[in-house]
Amino acid sequence: MSLTSPQGFRAAGVVAGLKSSGAPDLALVVNDGPRFAAAGVFTRNKVKAAPVLWSQQVLTTGALRAVVLNSGGANACTGPDGFQTAHATAEKAAELLGCGAVEVAICSTGLIGAQLPRDAVLAGVEKAHAGLAADEAAGTAAATAIMTTDTVAKQVVCENRAGWRVGGMTKGAGMIAPSMATMLSVLTTDAVLDADELDTALRAAVRVTFDRLDVDGSMSTNDTVLLLASGASGVRPDPADFQRSLTQTCRFLAEQMQADAEGVTKRITVRVTGAASEDDAVVVARTVARDSLVKTALFGCDGNWGRIAAAVGYSDAAVDPDRLDIAINGVELCRGGVAAGGRTSADLSGAEIAVVITLGLGDGEGEILTTDLSHAYVEENSAYPS
Amino acid sequence: MSLTSPQGFRAAGVVAGLKSSGAPDLALVVNDGPRFAAAGVFTRNKVKAAPVLWSQQVLTTGALRAVVLNSGGANACTGPDGFQTAHATAEKAAELLGCGAVEVAICSTGLIGAQLPRDAVLAGVEKAHAGLAADEAAGTAAATAIMTTDTVAKQVVCENRAGWRVGGMTKGAGMIAPSMATMLSVLTTDAVLDADELDTALRAAVRVTFDRLDVDGSMSTNDTVLLLASGASGVRPDPADFQRSLTQTCRFLAEQMQADAEGVTKRITVRVTGAASEDDAVVVARTVARDSLVKTALFGCDGNWGRIAAAVGYSDAAVDPDRLDIAINGVELCRGGVAAGGRTSADLSGAEIAVVITLGLGDGEGEILTTDLSHAYVEENSAYPS
Repeated sequence: MSLTSPQGFRAAGVVAGLKSSGAPDLALVVNDGPRFAAAGVFTRNKVKAAPVLWSQQVLTTGALRAVVLNSGGANACTGPDGFQTAHATAEKAAELLGCGAVEVAICSTGLIGAQLPRDAVLAGVEKAHAGLAADEAAGTAAATAIMTTDTVAKQVVCENRAGWRVGGMTKGAGMIAPSMATMLSVLTTDAVLDADELDTALRAAVRVTFDRLDVDGSMSTNDTVLLLASGASGVRPDPADFQRSLTQTCRFLAEQMQADAEGVTKRITVRVTGAASEDDAVVVARTVARDSLVKTALFGCDGNWGRIAAAVGYSDAAVDPDRLDIAINGVELCRGGVAAGGRTSADLSGAEIAVVITLGLGDGEGEILTTDLSHAYVEENSAYPS
Repeated sequence: MSLTSPQGFRAAGVVAGLKSSGAPDLALVVNDGPRFAAAGVFTRNKVKAAPVLWSQQVLTTGALRAVVLNSGGANACTGPDGFQTAHATAEKAAELLGCGAVEVAICSTGLIGAQLPRDAVLAGVEKAHAGLAADEAAGTAAATAIMTTDTVAKQVVCENRAGWRVGGMTKGAGMIAPSMATMLSVLTTDAVLDADELDTALRAAVRVTFDRLDVDGSMSTNDTVLLLASGASGVRPDPADFQRSLTQTCRFLAEQMQADAEGVTKRITVRVTGAASEDDAVVVARTVARDSLVKTALFGCDGNWGRIAAAVGYSDAAVDPDRLDIAINGVELCRGGVAAGGRTSADLSGAEIAVVITLGLGDGEGEILTTDLSHAYVEENSAYPS
C-alpha cells in the first residue's frame, strides 16, 4: 500500500529536527533501478521555492535516482542561500548513493520565508540513508515524515495483472495548482517506461485529478508531483493500461487529500455537464467550488442554490441563465433558472455533498472536488503558520 | 447627510412585510426635477435579477423619475413571473407619480430564487409614496429600509462651494462587481448634468471605488449603482470638480461597506506599487485580498508575508520574485523576495491593516479594500440565507 510496493524502491522517514514538535520531518525515496526514468509536474506559481527551481532543473535529464523531501520548512522566498541548501541536500544524498546531485530531486513544505537549518537537513539525509528499506513500513515512514497539517499519512498502490505496479504517497490538503497548503507527491512504478512516456502520462493524470481538487483556490510555491520508474518488473505496459492505473492512483491520493483537508466537515463534488466545452465545465465547477458563500452555506447544511447560480453567473464560462439546472444530492432545486423545489428538500446532513450543474449548452463535462468553509478552517489557518 | 440633501429629491422607507423580522424593507426615492438625467452601473454577473434586467432597459433613455428598492428578496432566478413583479412595481410607482413606468428603476436584495409577494410590494409602494419627504429623516428611512446583513445605514453627502451637492446611500457588505451580498446604491445630485456626462462620471467613479472593494470575491446577481441628477441647484458644475465629488462620495460609501462587512474584525488595504501597469497592480491587490490563507492569517494577527508572496506569485500579473517587497503596517517584512524582518515585528493588533506590495517593474499602482476571514464571517454565512 505504499510507494515501496513496486519493485526497485526503498524509502525512509526520520526525525531531522526541522519541526519544533519533534515529529518525523525528512523522507528519502531511492530508485534502485535498473532504470531511472522520471517525470515531474510543478506549481505554476511565479514565486517558486528553491527546491522547485532545483528539481525542475535536474528533471530536464528525464532521470532521477532519489528524492529528498522535508516538512518543517518550505525553503521558499529564501534567495541564493535557500537554493544552496537545496543543492547541498542533493549533493549529500548523491554522495551517499554514489550518483550525481543532478539525479536527486528535492521537495520541501512548511513555513514560507525562513531558511532551513542546513546542517540538520544534511544530518537527516545521512540518518534516512542509513534507514532505507524496501518494506511497507519504510514507505509509511516516508509518507508520515512529509505531513504538515495532514492528520493521516496518504498512500496508495495499484497492481496490474501484467505484473507491474504503481505506488504513491502524498501530503497536503490542497492541489497541485491552487493549493491550500503545499501538496507534495511521489509516485513510483516498476513498469518499463521512458521519460517521455512518463511525462505524457503524468501530465494527463494530474490534469484530471490533482488539478481538479480545489480546497481554497490558493496556489502554493512548492507543489510538486514526481513519478519515478524503476523498470524492475521487466514489463513494458500497455500505454492505455498504464494511463488508467496512474490516473486512478492520483485520483485515490486526491480523494485522500480532500477527506483530510483543513477544517473539512463536507466532502463536496461539483459536477458540471452540458457546458460549451470541457474547459468551460471545469471553469464553472471551480468557480462554484471556490465561492465562500457557497462553501459556508454547505457547511451550514443549507441548500442555498441561489448562491450557486450566482457563482455560475460570474464564472468566465458561457452561461445561459434560462437553461441552468442545479441539483444537490439528487434533488433538483433549480430548473431553467428558476426554483424547482424547496431549499430544504435536499438532505445535506451527511459528510458527502454532490452538486450537479447542467448548463444545457453542449457536451462539455467536468468536476472539481472541494470542501466546505468551516470554523475549523478559520481556526487552523489563523493559528497555524504555514 | 443623505440622498435627500441635494435639492429636488424626496424619499421614504417603510415596512412592506417582505422581511419576516418586520423591519423596514421598501424604499422609494423620487427626483422632482426640474431635470431627470440618470445613469447606472450594474452587475456583470450573467445571471441577472429581474430588477437589474428591468432597470438596465429603462435606463437606456438616460432619464429616471424614481427608484423603488426593496430588501427581503432579490427577485433573482425568478423567471417571467419575477420580471412581471418588477414591471408591476414600476407601473405602480409611475401611476402614483404621474409618469411612465419607463422612468422608474427597481432594485432588490435578499434571498435568490424566491418570488416576491407582489401585492405586498405594491402596497408598500403606495405606503412609501404617501410618506415621501425631503428631509434628512426621510433619506435615513430609505437607507434603513434597504439593509440586509448591514448593521448600520450608510449615507453621505458632499457639498461644493459652487452651490451643488452629491448625496447617496448604499447597502451591502461587498462591492459592485465581486460582491459579498448584493450591493445597492442610489446617488443624487442637484447639479445640472446630462445623462452622458453622468454616465461617464459614474463609470469613472465606480471603477476606482466600489470596484476596488472586495470582501470575498463573490459577485451578486443584483448589484446596482444609480445616479440621478435633478438640476435643482441651477448650477452646471466644473466637470473635474464634479468627478472629484462623485468619486469621493463613492469612496466614502465603499469605506462604510468595508467597515460593516460581514464578520469583519480587520479593515485591510492592499496597496500595490511598481507594477507593470495599473491593471496588473489591481490584479495583484485583488488576488491577495481574496486569498483565504492571507485573510485568515490577518484575522489571527499573524504577519505571514509568505502567504502574501504566494498569492502575488499565482496572480495573473507580471511578477519578478526577486524584486518583491512586502510591508505590513509600515514594517518591511520581505525585501527582494526574501525575509527582511521578523514575522512578529509588525503590530497587527489594531483594526486597520495596511499591506503594501512593491513589484519593482514599472509605475502601475492600485489598491483594494478588503476584510479578514473570521469565525463571524463563517457563522453569518452558514446561518443567514442570502
